[in-house]
Amino acid sequence: MQLQCPMPKLDFEVITLGHGSGGLLSNKLLDSSVFELLNNETLGTRHDGAILSAGGAVAFTTDSFVVSPIFFPGGDIGELAVNGTVNDLAMCGSIPKYLSLSFILEEGLPVKEFWEVLVSVKYACEKAGVQIVTGDTKVVDRGKGDKIFINTSGIGELHPNAAISIDRVLPGDKVLVSGNVATHGMAIMSVREGLEFETDIESDTCNLNDMVKALLDGFGPAIHLLRDPTRGGVATVLTEIAKHGRIGIDIRQQDIPVDEQVDSACEILGLDPLYVANEGIFVAIVSEDMAEEALKTMQSFEEGAQAAIIGEVSEAHPGQVVLTSRIGGRRVVNMLVGEQLPRIC
Amino acid sequence: MQLQCPMPKLDFEVITLGHGSGGLLSNKLLDSSVFELLNNETLGTRHDGAILSAGGAVAFTTDSFVVSPIFFPGGDIGELAVNGTVNDLAMCGSIPKYLSLSFILEEGLPVKEFWEVLVSVKYACEKAGVQIVTGDTKVVDRGKGDKIFINTSGIGELHPNAAISIDRVLPGDKVLVSGNVATHGMAIMSVREGLEFETDIESDTCNLNDMVKALLDGFGPAIHLLRDPTRGGVATVLTEIAKHGRIGIDIRQQDIPVDEQVDSACEILGLDPLYVANEGIFVAIVSEDMAEEALKTMQSFEEGAQAAIIGEVSEAHPGQVVLTSRIGGRRVVNMLVGEQLPRIC
Repeated sequence: MQLQCPMPKLDFEVITLGHGSGGLLSNKLLDSSVFELLNNETLGTRHDGAILSAGGAVAFTTDSFVVSPIFFPGGDIGELAVNGTVNDLAMCGSIPKYLSLSFILEEGLPVKEFWEVLVSVKYACEKAGVQIVTGDTKVVDRGKGDKIFINTSGIGELHPNAAISIDRVLPGDKVLVSGNVATHGMAIMSVREGLEFETDIESDTCNLNDMVKALLDGFGPAIHLLRDPTRGGVATVLTEIAKHGRIGIDIRQQDIPVDEQVDSACEILGLDPLYVANEGIFVAIVSEDMAEEALKTMQSFEEGAQAAIIGEVSEAHPGQVVLTSRIGGRRVVNMLVGEQLPRIC
Repeated sequence: MQLQCPMPKLDFEVITLGHGSGGLLSNKLLDSSVFELLNNETLGTRHDGAILSAGGAVAFTTDSFVVSPIFFPGGDIGELAVNGTVNDLAMCGSIPKYLSLSFILEEGLPVKEFWEVLVSVKYACEKAGVQIVTGDTKVVDRGKGDKIFINTSGIGELHPNAAISIDRVLPGDKVLVSGNVATHGMAIMSVREGLEFETDIESDTCNLNDMVKALLDGFGPAIHLLRDPTRGGVATVLTEIAKHGRIGIDIRQQDIPVDEQVDSACEILGLDPLYVANEGIFVAIVSEDMAEEALKTMQSFEEGAQAAIIGEVSEAHPGQVVLTSRIGGRRVVNMLVGEQLPRIC
């Protein structure tokens, strides 16, 4: 954590059901934490909602976060909740502006953990350039939740150059990923109860809106589609695109960037990195003539250093994603079947 | 339920962790339920978020719903989640337009119950005139949630006549409630484990946006403030207004409308109806000269039939709400202390 935010002195150390009453205790908790830490003019009105000015087309998205554990290598649920919704807004071709923040806390949660998560929320908001403008806090009985669940919903302003649509994905388009795949999933697995193994793998959770803005600034309508491959991984996202757009997608295993340690961990556990969850990368479908330039733009960002062109959209096998393996074999890639690791985000 | 929506045939009867994987099972569940039932053009794009056109000022709000039990006399968590967010948008002086819908499901939930809640969501959206445009579904392990938690966030367009602000609450203003108080809370209590008692009390959950629109159409800036007294009840909302606006509020017990059966139930349990949660009424602070007319408008709606003027804003005792009892005694009303009934919404 890069911000210095000492926890205020409070006369309670754990969250109780009364903190979700909507009465005095709720007010005490929120005054000393959320409102103190995330303060801005809109949030300060403390109405039932926020009044915002939004010109023209806006993007609107929602995500609930139930990741377990709530603190993991490279991040925590607060940072993840902000980045996840910021990134969904970016994938719509918008500039993220405003977030809501809604907590479902479990009775007995140490206030210290709540505070740490809030500080992460603040830090992630500042980094992504968004404001928390409205929120909600509920408390459920011990054993009816799991420490902290967070919903973040968000509003973004559509980038003037954005023309993101599955209908614009065309044969010949290039398929790019903005960084190493499978990192977040393996970071969570490495600390998951019953599965712990020693690695230095850290979650890739980060805000992607700056990189997306640079792409839209530079290449606008040549960016045909953006998707972040979270649950289900790159394989599931590409399969959804192929099925929904009734086009084929060819990808090359040798071109898919994977961190060496992540790759080894996947091999040990018998997992295909293509199905492992990500939180800090996106897939871009870009027109053929602009793909190389777009790649350079992505690589100019720290979080895009490993960006790569991994394949093409094709007229062959509509609805199917076909992978050419390192040794030249070809196989159809399907959606994730069953669950790989529950509660990854 | 007034809509006929037979459940589709599915090859699973309970929710499993795989339904939250983001992969094949998630797609199967959502295709056959959410997308089938709540279908509209925006939701149909199935992107990471929705692109909406919003001109000028918009209201934005969020609420997570954890009510227990999820089915209760007079409603269920789906209806509550739609109405709650619709009403928060109305309280901002806006016309509710778009909602997000995010589920946290507990592994083992019967799909039938999920379907019933979805049908309620659909019905409540149609009644309130709003669309679900984006969503999310997570599944948590058995014992780490409680059947269904729902977050709804929402966007509304500011009513052109709206000038809702705590700073506009002035001495002389009248305090109105739009209907009987304490009904929702007592309906939940009557079926709560360990507390069951026989009554015909049904939750007052309903959408209030039509009544609010009529008030803003007719009286615009004379409507100084709107609040829905959910958790913490009317007492907590009025205390927040008094404290935040540094004004005094006088209310008369004899003018506060309470259903007879609700009043009896409160008396038996030793509860003050002023602290019991509501889901289908609001408090309006209205300029003195328009209060009687505004009351008539409220009473012209079915859900406003019991509306009443219950008090005034005063220069005396800033920051305090003072109640004159039926027998003429005066006492200060405070915020709810501790919890009354957890998980009421």
